[in-house]
Amino acid sequence: MKRALAAMGLALTLAGAAQPGLADDFDKELKARKSLMQVYAFNIGILGAMAKGEMPYDAEIAEAAASNLHAAVSMRNPTMWPEGSDADALGDKTRAKPEMWSTYPKVAEKSKAMKEAAAKMASMAGDGLDAVRANMKSLGEGCKGCHEPFRVPKKQ
Amino acid sequence: MKRALAAMGLALTLAGAAQPGLADDFDKELKARKSLMQVYAFNIGILGAMAKGEMPYDAEIAEAAASNLHAAVSMRNPTMWPEGSDADALGDKTRAKPEMWSTYPKVAEKSKAMKEAAAKMASMAGDGLDAVRANMKSLGEGCKGCHEPFRVPKKQ
Repeated sequence: MKRALAAMGLALTLAGAAQPGLADDFDKELKARKSLMQVYAFNIGILGAMAKGEMPYDAEIAEAAASNLHAAVSMRNPTMWPEGSDADALGDKTRAKPEMWSTYPKVAEKSKAMKEAAAKMASMAGDGLDAVRANMKSLGEGCKGCHEPFRVPKKQ
Repeated sequence: MKRALAAMGLALTLAGAAQPGLADDFDKELKARKSLMQVYAFNIGILGAMAKGEMPYDAEIAEAAASNLHAAVSMRNPTMWPEGSDADALGDKTRAKPEMWSTYPKVAEKSKAMKEAAAKMASMAGDGLDAVRANMKSLGEGCKGCHEPFRVPKKQ
């Protein structure tokens, strides 16, 4: 029953409507979610480079990067994570563990924490380098919140 | 002088600060902007599939896709489009024409039109299939607004 409920929650929240006409190899969804992760990474990379002193702090650029990140992690993607689009089913095409779905709504809680960290960074990133530095750790924890439990380690 | 001003506008608006430590092959920037375009495409694809009857209309999914698209096109990316990251300089790695920079701020006006089209779609996409259909044309024109003048045609 618990499993059935979890599956139903997933069906409503993660999977959304099936997309007729699309092959169920989920290529479109995998491409989209990897692209969205790249958008995260680019913006976090700017903030991280400033925090580490590898890029000069610029309030406008920092604020834009943090605001972009917040917008990206706040997107609602009911169709991007269909059930079955995991590494057990799709092999090397994705590193998403099936636990993302089987332990739902844990992943949604982690996503909420990431949104909160990004919102805080966005509200402060224009205030100076110290503000960026002070919020990098919680951003990193936001990333790890999903990646550690729900992502298969990279193959060597 | 006009050219110098345009270049200065670009430097402030498009290029932003250089990122020390990065090679100037712009690989990071190209990857990021292509990823962001994929995020656009995924969300426009959902709305387009509904409009064409290839996917059943669902108010929540339509509204989410339109809202995501609006968030994506509203991102500020001062570091993603550095001057010189065009097809004349980089060959097949990008289809961005140098005219994007040399005719600045034309591209910014086109981007504003895209934001307005996406905002309108986002405000209406949850109201029914007719509302989605009514706004697809202006979204398509938003895409073409940049792609036609500023993108090298795809090679056959």
